Parts: sequence; C-alpha cells; structure tokens
Amino acid sequence: MQIESQSPTDVVASYKAKIDESISRFFDRKEEETKDVLSKRVIKIIRDYTEGGGKRLRPIFMILGYRLFSPEEKGIFDASISIELAQSYLLIHDDVIDKSDVRRGKPSMHIRLEDAFVAGCPQSRSTAEGLAIVAGDLAESYAHEALLRSGFYSENLVKADLELSKTIEMTGYGQFLDILSTTMDDFNEGDLIRLHLWKTAKYTLEGPLAMGAILSGTEYDITALREYGRVLGIAFQLKDDILGLFGDEKTIGKSVYSDVNEGKKTLLMIKAMEWGDRDDANFIRKMLRKGNVTNEEFERIKKLVMDTGSYDYSINLMGKLVDKSKEYLAKVSGDNYVKKILDWLSDYLISRDH
Amino acid sequence: MQIESQSPTDVVASYKAKIDESISRFFDRKEEETKDVLSKRVIKIIRDYTEGGGKRLRPIFMILGYRLFSPEEKGIFDASISIELAQSYLLIHDDVIDKSDVRRGKPSMHIRLEDAFVAGCPQSRSTAEGLAIVAGDLAESYAHEALLRSGFYSENLVKADLELSKTIEMTGYGQFLDILSTTMDDFNEGDLIRLHLWKTAKYTLEGPLAMGAILSGTEYDITALREYGRVLGIAFQLKDDILGLFGDEKTIGKSVYSDVNEGKKTLLMIKAMEWGDRDDANFIRKMLRKGNVTNEEFERIKKLVMDTGSYDYSINLMGKLVDKSKEYLAKVSGDNYVKKILDWLSDYLISRDH
Repeated sequence: MQIESQSPTDVVASYKAKIDESISRFFDRKEEETKDVLSKRVIKIIRDYTEGGGKRLRPIFMILGYRLFSPEEKGIFDASISIELAQSYLLIHDDVIDKSDVRRGKPSMHIRLEDAFVAGCPQSRSTAEGLAIVAGDLAESYAHEALLRSGFYSENLVKADLELSKTIEMTGYGQFLDILSTTMDDFNEGDLIRLHLWKTAKYTLEGPLAMGAILSGTEYDITALREYGRVLGIAFQLKDDILGLFGDEKTIGKSVYSDVNEGKKTLLMIKAMEWGDRDDANFIRKMLRKGNVTNEEFERIKKLVMDTGSYDYSINLMGKLVDKSKEYLAKVSGDNYVKKILDWLSDYLISRDH
Repeated sequence: MQIESQSPTDVVASYKAKIDESISRFFDRKEEETKDVLSKRVIKIIRDYTEGGGKRLRPIFMILGYRLFSPEEKGIFDASISIELAQSYLLIHDDVIDKSDVRRGKPSMHIRLEDAFVAGCPQSRSTAEGLAIVAGDLAESYAHEALLRSGFYSENLVKADLELSKTIEMTGYGQFLDILSTTMDDFNEGDLIRLHLWKTAKYTLEGPLAMGAILSGTEYDITALREYGRVLGIAFQLKDDILGLFGDEKTIGKSVYSDVNEGKKTLLMIKAMEWGDRDDANFIRKMLRKGNVTNEEFERIKKLVMDTGSYDYSINLMGKLVDKSKEYLAKVSGDNYVKKILDWLSDYLISRDH
C-alpha cells in the first residue's frame, strides 16, 4: 500500500509493527544460531529488554530518512532495528552508571541479570552490574550486525555503519559530559545544549535520519535533514526533562524523583537557580547534590521552577526550536508526503505525555 | 622490501612499528576532528592508554591473515588497529568489572579517569567507573571506525566488520561465563576450554586472522586458518594463566596475586582441586572466594599446583594444542613464508615470559 493514502498516525503505527517484527526475526535468528545454553539465556534477556518497551522513535526516523529518497522495501525495517539495539545498549550502560533500578516501568538490565544469574550470591549487585556492562556491549554488537546484514549495497552499508559508529561515539562524549555535569558547579545553558546535542539529538534524530538517507543511496545534499534532526532533537530532550519533573510516573515509566535524585542539571534547574533568589538557588543546588529528596522538597523544587519563570522558558525555547526545525524541514529534499509525516512527528514529540 | 628476506623477528618488529604509526595517525585525526576541549581530553586519554602498551599481537595476526593471500599494502596497517582498539575497549570494561586498578603495569582506565576528572569529588571512584564504561564504549566505536575507513573494497569491509562484530560478541559471551564462573561451584575443564575459546581465542587469533583474510578478498577456504587460530588461542590463554601464577610481576605488568584474588578458576586451579586431597582442595576453594591472600597462602597454592601435577598437565595440554595448531597451519592455503612466520609466532606465544 502506498503511504500517501494513510494518515501519519497509521503510517507510524504500521512502521512500529514492522520494526517489532524485524526485532523478533533478528532475535529468533540469534537464538537459533547458538547451541550454548548460557548464551541463549543472555540473548533471551536482551531480547525481552529490547522487545519490552520503547516508542521505536529512532528506527521510525531512520525509515523516514530512507523513504524521503526511496520507495519502501523490507530491508530498511531490518536495518532500522540497528538503532533500536544501540538504544538498548545505551540504556543498559546508562542505568549501570546512574545505578537506576527501573527503566520503562520495569527492572533495569542489571536487576534482571541479578535475578536471573546471581540472586543470593555474595556481592550479587556488583556482579550483576558487571554482567550488565557486558550485556550492553553485546547489544552494541547486535546493532552493527543488524545493519551489516540488512542486504543493502555494500558501499551504502559501509557509510551507514560509519554513521552508526559516529552516532554512538557522539553519544559517548555526551554521556561523559552528563556524568561530569553533576560535579561541575558552573554547568550552564550552553553546556546543557551541547549535552543535548551530543547525548540526545545525534542518536535520536540526526543519526537515524542520516543513516536512512545514506542507505537510500541518495545523492541529494542531506545537510538540512541533519540540521532538522539536531534542532528537533534538542527540543525532544527539553520535553523529556519537563516530563521527568512534571510527568505522570505511570506514563513515563520511571520515578518523577529520579532526575532530581540523580542530580541532573536540566534547563529547568539551571534557569530556576539563575533566576531564583540566593536561598532558593542554594536549596536547589543542595537537593541536586543530596539525592533521596522528600515529597515536600520535591514539591518546593517544582514550585520554584514554576515561580522563577524557568518552566515557561523551557516551554518557549522548545517551541522556538520546533519552529526552527520546521524551517529546516522545508529545505529538505525528497518525498513531500514523508516530509508531512516528519512535520507531524515534530508536533508529536513536544506534545507527548511520555 | 619483500618479507622473505627478513627474519620472523624482524618482520614482526617492523609490523609492530607500522601498527604504532597507524595508531598515532588515527588519534591525530581524532584529536584534530573535534574542537571541543572535553572530547579532546577524553580522546587523548584513550590514546595514551592504547599507545602505552601491548604486544600488538592481534593486529599482527590480522596483517598476517591478510598477507597469506595478498601483497603488503598500507591499508592493512590502518585496518589492523581496529582489533587493537577493540582490545582497549575490552580491557577497559574488564578492569571496571573486576575492579582492577592496574593494567600493563600502569593505572587502569577508571583510575586514570578518576585522576583526570573527578579527583576529590564525593564518590569519585564510582563516578570514574561510570566514565570508564563510556571510555570503553568510545574505544569500541573507534574500532569500527578504523576498519570502515581503511579504504578496502566495500564488500570486503562489510564482511570484515561483521567478523569484528561477531568477534566482540563471542568475547562478550566469554566474559559472561568468566564472571559467572566465580559463582559456579561445578565449573569444570570443559567450561574452561569453552571460556578460553570465546573470551581469548576468538578475539586474539581466530577473529583477527579471519578479518585479515577477508580483507584480502581471498576466495580460498579459510576454515583451517580459523581452526588454527582457535586451537592456538586456547594454548595462548593457558600460557597466560601460567604466567599469571608463576610469572614475574615486573614482566607481566600486574600483581601475581591478582588472578587468585579475583577468584579466577584457571585450569591450574581446577586440576589442583580435582587431584589434591580434600583439605587441599577446600583450601584452594576458600582462597579463590576470599581474595586478598597472604604471601604464605599464595605460596601454598603454588606448591599445590606443582605437587598435584596440575602444572605439568597445563604445560602438556598447551604443547598438544600447539602441535594440533601446527597440523591445521599445514593445511592453510596462502603464502609459505607467511605461514613460517605464523609457525614462529606459535612457538613464541607459548615460550614468552609476558
């Protein structure tokens, strides 16, 4: 069926279903490929983790990047799961680094591995964290494998895999900055935007869109497409940070306290500290260092974010970035209906509740 | 110069020098590529880590795998560093998992990162471990990048990168088994050989040899070459375990206590427990659980390994595996002088003192 006859919601839903099928097929093959019982169990746990959640935004963007320049074909769904597997890898390591026990409303990978392999053993948590580092590394191998086996022309695969590798690399620099941000007293808005660009925008939007376009073999200039991804990616992260503080715990799949308890210097916090009076700023600073905030402390933080105008600032900046991204989108070459879906997704990204 | 006119020692030494040059070139480009100060510092630390040690065995095997079927060319040196970068990544994560502070006689990655970025901060060690997880992930990206940029035909690059990804994957299953082995009371010789096959043989020998052969574009069957790598790889690890217990601390670059303190169930330990009397076996079992052994306890372990015949068993098995590997080598297609160097390297691997 031609996508032009479907609404954006239906197109995105049908892509999601096909991505999920590709993920299942990939893991079916991985499980069949090995006779070893331990490896099979490890694969199964990474499979459950990957199948168990996520909006599949990144593979959807990769498919759309491809569809801008090329008609639909099966290979792109198989290739698109590479970025979802990379996402599994990043989340697994992220949770080990942050010592977060919950992800998408379910146990994070090190908790699953602790239960499956070392429950009751001495130092079971730290052993499980070691296992989770390895599980993340495995998911990264799977990401490259899924892409390299997707059947596209070798020349395009080499370029797309370089883009994947670059995407993972940039995310790493972002992750580095993110970890260090909690120890930096002078971490400011500029640092934060750089962080969002590296840690979120590259692997959520720019990288997937570029990988898709590269696989299509297009000779069009994809600079505007990359810019679109970068700018919208920052807006996406601002929205994530807003949900992290004001969202509904059940919908977002993690504790609303967790960003504060991890000491995350979001734009909401940075501006509230900048614009609040000295006592208020010190209070927020103290809370971000302390972890384990009480309900009262948490409510006071939220009130300060509202009262200082920091909340409105984030909302406004997000709106401006989305407008800017639409300007870039207008300059993107390729299929007009696909561009309409991208436009629709831009609005979805900043209006979503999870 | 044709390698036929050089001795194996000279060929290996000249390869090592060219590998080191390729590593320098790679990191020069990485450092130039980014204007960001933090990223530059991170790249520099991974560079120092990679440049600072290692026998470059894996890239040497990769080059020889290539040279079996193809004349020397610059691209293969650039491609070969991919497996050395993968080695950096594995060692970095390995040391985080084992909480080892020393590698190759120098601080391990998390210690370097602690000193460079978070010295004096609260929870500096655990923050640095998080940074080291990311540094390992970056080194893995670099591994793929080095290979994909090496300039070979895309078709061969795709196959070689799949082999790299498979190699990293197998090492992951091996790492998993290695971590769990410390908690398994019934971990036996069969499990151990499987562990050595996955965690050592694949990424030290089989993978690099296969990657090199693949890049040459050879249409010869490389099954015997893979078998050679697998069998010799197990012998290599047996030698490593012997050095880990009986080697000279200064030469091997880590504490001779560390294998015992990490609870490593090497073949030396397994056979000493199997053949020692009940008290002796229980003593070894206890020491492997305990960690932090005293000098007296350590000497008693070594004596038991000798007295039970376990040491001789490892030495004999190693010899048999090397003989077997030479049988496979005889069946390998390709250049005869390169095969002579491989033969010489087989002997070196089991006679080395570090």
